[in-house]
Amino acid sequence: MNGNIFAFYNLIRSTMIGKLVQPEIEQLIDNRNWAMLRETFADMHPAEIADIIADIDEKDQAIVFRILPKKLSYSVFEYLDFDAQEILLKSLGQEEVSEILNEMSPDDRTELLEDLPGVVVKKLLRLLSPEERAVATKLLGYPEYSVGRIMTPDYLAIKSEWTIEKVLLHVRDIGKKVEYIDTIFVRDNEGKLVDEITLKEILLAKPDSLVKDLMNEIYVSLKVTDNQEKAIELFKEYDLYAIPVVNEENYLVGMVTADDVIDVIEEENTEDIQKFGGVEALDEPYIDTPFFNMIKKRAGWLTILFLGELLTATAMGFFEDEIAKAVILALFVPLIISSGGNSGSQAATLVIRSMALGEITLKDWWKVMKRELLSGLMLGTILGTIGFLRIEIWSKFFNFYGEHSFLVGLTVAFTLIGVVMWGTLSGSMLPFIMKRLGFDPATSSAPFVATLVDVTGLVIYFTIASLILAGTLL
Amino acid sequence: MNGNIFAFYNLIRSTMIGKLVQPEIEQLIDNRNWAMLRETFADMHPAEIADIIADIDEKDQAIVFRILPKKLSYSVFEYLDFDAQEILLKSLGQEEVSEILNEMSPDDRTELLEDLPGVVVKKLLRLLSPEERAVATKLLGYPEYSVGRIMTPDYLAIKSEWTIEKVLLHVRDIGKKVEYIDTIFVRDNEGKLVDEITLKEILLAKPDSLVKDLMNEIYVSLKVTDNQEKAIELFKEYDLYAIPVVNEENYLVGMVTADDVIDVIEEENTEDIQKFGGVEALDEPYIDTPFFNMIKKRAGWLTILFLGELLTATAMGFFEDEIAKAVILALFVPLIISSGGNSGSQAATLVIRSMALGEITLKDWWKVMKRELLSGLMLGTILGTIGFLRIEIWSKFFNFYGEHSFLVGLTVAFTLIGVVMWGTLSGSMLPFIMKRLGFDPATSSAPFVATLVDVTGLVIYFTIASLILAGTLL
Repeated sequence: MNGNIFAFYNLIRSTMIGKLVQPEIEQLIDNRNWAMLRETFADMHPAEIADIIADIDEKDQAIVFRILPKKLSYSVFEYLDFDAQEILLKSLGQEEVSEILNEMSPDDRTELLEDLPGVVVKKLLRLLSPEERAVATKLLGYPEYSVGRIMTPDYLAIKSEWTIEKVLLHVRDIGKKVEYIDTIFVRDNEGKLVDEITLKEILLAKPDSLVKDLMNEIYVSLKVTDNQEKAIELFKEYDLYAIPVVNEENYLVGMVTADDVIDVIEEENTEDIQKFGGVEALDEPYIDTPFFNMIKKRAGWLTILFLGELLTATAMGFFEDEIAKAVILALFVPLIISSGGNSGSQAATLVIRSMALGEITLKDWWKVMKRELLSGLMLGTILGTIGFLRIEIWSKFFNFYGEHSFLVGLTVAFTLIGVVMWGTLSGSMLPFIMKRLGFDPATSSAPFVATLVDVTGLVIYFTIASLILAGTLL
Repeated sequence: MNGNIFAFYNLIRSTMIGKLVQPEIEQLIDNRNWAMLRETFADMHPAEIADIIADIDEKDQAIVFRILPKKLSYSVFEYLDFDAQEILLKSLGQEEVSEILNEMSPDDRTELLEDLPGVVVKKLLRLLSPEERAVATKLLGYPEYSVGRIMTPDYLAIKSEWTIEKVLLHVRDIGKKVEYIDTIFVRDNEGKLVDEITLKEILLAKPDSLVKDLMNEIYVSLKVTDNQEKAIELFKEYDLYAIPVVNEENYLVGMVTADDVIDVIEEENTEDIQKFGGVEALDEPYIDTPFFNMIKKRAGWLTILFLGELLTATAMGFFEDEIAKAVILALFVPLIISSGGNSGSQAATLVIRSMALGEITLKDWWKVMKRELLSGLMLGTILGTIGFLRIEIWSKFFNFYGEHSFLVGLTVAFTLIGVVMWGTLSGSMLPFIMKRLGFDPATSSAPFVATLVDVTGLVIYFTIASLILAGTLL
């Protein structure tokens, strides 16, 4: 690497994070300085090159991609996001497309194919070699969110009667094609999984000893049809880098690796967070989601919540006379319903997250309910006291709430206790009910809980008011 | 393994998930059948044994732990959660404690030490061998949430002039002590990091070739002082299993592995989700958090939000006369403020999550603002139309809203458009403002946004009402 290039490369490196690399690269492209560009790319990480390609003008993407050395281009392609991959596939010649697809690692290829329209998928599958096509369609056959979708069928498998020497020869022979070789699986003669051994154990063993001498038959495995959440659980519990995947008859069919699980974890969390915020999961980055797609995903829930909230107008209608007699009651409506909503949102968050992490399960409902009722009582008492004091102090100074301010204060205080208890109760129990009914607990979103609490909160408020204020204000 | 044990072991395996293993194991403990228990444990995964120990009676934990073979006991200990580790440390003899600490992997030991009270930490540090103590205190010196806290100083490092044969000898020699050996780092004579090579590349190379023949000087690395979020980013972008950690002068000091990053990701997500739900992050599982700790973390935000919401009472106070004249206006107050809150909560969720994933940064604020204003207009129009139709249809059938129902409908419709636009605007911009001011964007929680929108929403409502209804109802 000559000094000039090195300096230039360092400049690129140091400015990468801010994606300020454009000017220099763009200049090279504008000048059609392919030699220099190719030399520059040769020293960069494929992920960095992918970032650059994604950022340049669409029409230049295919050109820049073509100048990459063949082997590098396959890696770069895998680091591109789906949109960029799609654009490239369309603009590259058929032969090149076929080569790229055949060289991609199977799990990345599945992810790409899943995201393309059906017609394009069919066309692309035709480009794969018969052998590769079999793999792709096989992976595509597993249900969405199943382990089958994220596994790779490229792994290292050995037999118990092999010598360590033979294993090492096998690793040298097959290893190049396999993404991750640190965990090696032991199969019996039928192809059933019997154990897993780390490459470390192999390396530390004597060359003439047998695989079966190292075996302990202790391992964890996943079924192809298992939900991806199960994979996350196992990776977290056992601190692993790779887990074997078997079918119903315990035949080894693939392997899930930690790097793929990291992506799944982030996707699941995004989905949970968006659902909890009252949006249908977007599936794409916010900024890349087409505008009307996004509106659709937001309008759905917002409309449902709005229809629910219309019940508050109905509920308020029942108490129209009370409001007309004591307008002062209307002033505290927003305060009261929002306190119920906030405490419900807190409880729902804690319970939903705890469920997602497997800390609590359905059978803990009674324990959680006791805890939340007590929490609601305490939190409601805190807010009730503040509310009462606020009304009392204000009325001393401004005579704002009339002669019955004490009774109004009491009404608001007792209502707050009731509403906050109701909020924590519904917020914490709704996720259990959702889960019991087979829905995702995260569906009991903050806005959903708030809406539920609003209607009930109003009824609690006016009922307590009519009890306390009967004969005075009402 | 004899057939009887095997059957028993399978029984345990198959019932593990439901944690129903207790009766059999408890019986063995009750009968003081240590031999059988020891034999049973020998065939189980350390994580499973840890689960069992965590579930049995506290007084039995130390006994059961003591019967484990030495080597197994170290692994089991690392899989126990902190509470169980603490109990065990207290009940085991000093000598045993010292042995366990010395055998733990350094990153797990740091995590344990961080969680213990200061006095206990000092006492425990004294139990470490001088060499180990140096490592532990060194790890503890790095700021919280820094990469230094999750790295392990156990890694494989080689030099560029070594032959592959020498590397393999080194791996056999040192490998046993190192948790993860699939990525090997190349250091220069001063100890500075110059490259990383996978064990796969080493295994596939000729024994007499040199390390430098395999080097390409392309690698990613982390600084010890980098935030752990940076580590997550790199793992996601580059699909890695281990990343080297260097100090300011590029000296290799440690390594971060994918399994530790998975734990960090989940912790960060939990924190974000809890903050977004309006709770201070709990730091512990919901069900294990002491009751009054939890109340403290919830009461803080709830009180702040309540004080904010008290402003709604003040705002409503300003419009007391309007409400007295047209009680009908009060009926729609909950509907209107909740619609603003819900749309704000949606916008905040999308923006906060997008920021956390690095999809949008501060400089995108204008792009997001345009998008959200337009979204607000469309969503507001949808809700406004539904609201208007509801009022019109009801008034046709029930004459519920009086002779001016059309004007009331218009008021509600226009208010909804304004309030939803204001909601999406504040929900989407608040995270930017928070981030700009150096706070966590997730602090602009759903309840926080809702409170902000409530007060403004009331002002918007009554202002529009006085414009449209002047001369009729008002």
